[in-house]
Amino acid sequence: MSTDNFTIGVDLGGTNLRIGAYTPSKGLLEAIQLRTRLCDGPEAVVNDMCAAIRRLRHRYQSQYLLAGIGVGSPGPLELPAGILRQPPNLPGWDNFELRAAIEGDAGMPISLQNDANVAALAECQLGRGKSFAVDSLCMLTLGTGVGGGIILRRKIWDGMTGMAGEVGHLNIWTEGGMACGCGSCGCLEAHASATGVRKMAQDEIAHGTAPGLATLYADKPDFDARDVADLANAGDADAKAIFGKVGRSLGIGLASLVNVLNLPLYVLGGGLANAWGLFSTPLFDELRKRSYVYRLTADKTHIVTAELGPDAGLLGACLLPSQTES
Amino acid sequence: MSTDNFTIGVDLGGTNLRIGAYTPSKGLLEAIQLRTRLCDGPEAVVNDMCAAIRRLRHRYQSQYLLAGIGVGSPGPLELPAGILRQPPNLPGWDNFELRAAIEGDAGMPISLQNDANVAALAECQLGRGKSFAVDSLCMLTLGTGVGGGIILRRKIWDGMTGMAGEVGHLNIWTEGGMACGCGSCGCLEAHASATGVRKMAQDEIAHGTAPGLATLYADKPDFDARDVADLANAGDADAKAIFGKVGRSLGIGLASLVNVLNLPLYVLGGGLANAWGLFSTPLFDELRKRSYVYRLTADKTHIVTAELGPDAGLLGACLLPSQTES
Repeated sequence: MSTDNFTIGVDLGGTNLRIGAYTPSKGLLEAIQLRTRLCDGPEAVVNDMCAAIRRLRHRYQSQYLLAGIGVGSPGPLELPAGILRQPPNLPGWDNFELRAAIEGDAGMPISLQNDANVAALAECQLGRGKSFAVDSLCMLTLGTGVGGGIILRRKIWDGMTGMAGEVGHLNIWTEGGMACGCGSCGCLEAHASATGVRKMAQDEIAHGTAPGLATLYADKPDFDARDVADLANAGDADAKAIFGKVGRSLGIGLASLVNVLNLPLYVLGGGLANAWGLFSTPLFDELRKRSYVYRLTADKTHIVTAELGPDAGLLGACLLPSQTES
Repeated sequence: MSTDNFTIGVDLGGTNLRIGAYTPSKGLLEAIQLRTRLCDGPEAVVNDMCAAIRRLRHRYQSQYLLAGIGVGSPGPLELPAGILRQPPNLPGWDNFELRAAIEGDAGMPISLQNDANVAALAECQLGRGKSFAVDSLCMLTLGTGVGGGIILRRKIWDGMTGMAGEVGHLNIWTEGGMACGCGSCGCLEAHASATGVRKMAQDEIAHGTAPGLATLYADKPDFDARDVADLANAGDADAKAIFGKVGRSLGIGLASLVNVLNLPLYVLGGGLANAWGLFSTPLFDELRKRSYVYRLTADKTHIVTAELGPDAGLLGACLLPSQTES
């Protein structure tokens, strides 16, 4: 009788911490969800994480062979060292040695990657990559920011120091673009994230020329990108124009990516991707105009929304140990 | 007694056609240089090429074992089919089946890539990549246009259809940029090529506000980028400003590349790279401002001019057969 392998995956987020046990044939055997105790510091969070890893390990190691532990973390994460570098979503973790802390407790090497790369791996092996039968893709996660991950021939391309795939910081509006948290301006993230949508709406409201958005703000001062999308779907021209800018920004960024990477598949995930119907036309207009590689390969270059939902991070972490060995 | 391997490489250009025989230990054994008879059509050029391949094959196959034939061609080149797609530097070759034509004569499979990828491979294995002891790089060839090639772990990343690495068509000046031959505007190629430098100078002359450039034009109506560089080196402010724009454009493009690829090495080749001293300061200014990945990795991210000269294309073609097998 042969023993199946299992892996343990960790999805470390700024709000939630999820730990799962996984086998290729059965999928997720179990998932533990905890709050990320950011206020108690990185050591406390790693203690919670490692306790959950031990629990899953003890529960499943009599049935299955532990093939590895995979961890997805917010970035910037310097690899292979596994040290966080001023991570905006993990305040107080600058220079924290995440790999050393986890490996010290687990007593074995772990596979570590930034969360956007991990989600891209899951989408490639279990989501759209599987549906389109391709082994390479670039994923853009349109959330609070814009994360990205590149999978080339089934493996994460993480570059020299683990920081590849930062497509949110492609230059789009080189002059006159909105300020980006990275210190530049006009980045894709500044215009195609939920934060960017809210900021563009605030600018319109401040100009006093967008009555629908002004009413939204009066009713709900902490409105978010979804509220702007609802307004656009109800026909408000100013809200629609904001998603026009989102689409143009994505099309210009994708044009650069298609010209440089020539991949078969680009996947848009994250909450803002739900507004696909509001931004896809200007996206393809810019892409066709600005990428002759796209025009030459449009029949086999696919731009689609993601298939996996919020589980992508946990599933990708569970897949990490096997991609590292392949 | 073991027999050394040799390869035959072909550097097909719009002006010259070069065919060489190469061994890893001895380098180029011999190189044949011919004019590319464009006016006689693709079949005539392929006949010249194949006759030279046969000559080298017969001359060296008694001493060495032929390990393969590598060919670098102007693009766009659709791979693996090996069909040219509207190549701007090979007028009349649209849809020409280059691979089939050469393989039909040679009676064996060939390794085929676009010329910028081939030059990048040579620079990685025999030039700057060797000097810096790295196995990955992106090369930007600043010539009449801006070509590019990406080498990841010693192999060309040519994408789904052989068209990856088109860094000349990164979007830089999204609004108000100069028109590019690709149909977009504001591409890197439109601002950081010899053609772009001449066009920017012509625009300045037309505005009537650049006396030094106007004098250059009066003396030499067919002035080129090198003349503009000479004028800049002599202190002319308008000529210097043009190279300032070249440097800013390159810095913005490199910022996107560093954020997406996180490579250890970016190599600038081609004739315009000789003006490095005129554009490197604005290049690094933009790069530092726009790429936080660069700021986090500046000590190990190298931006340098190429080491190999015009032989890069021929040497890279000779290296192609072995990289394909690795």
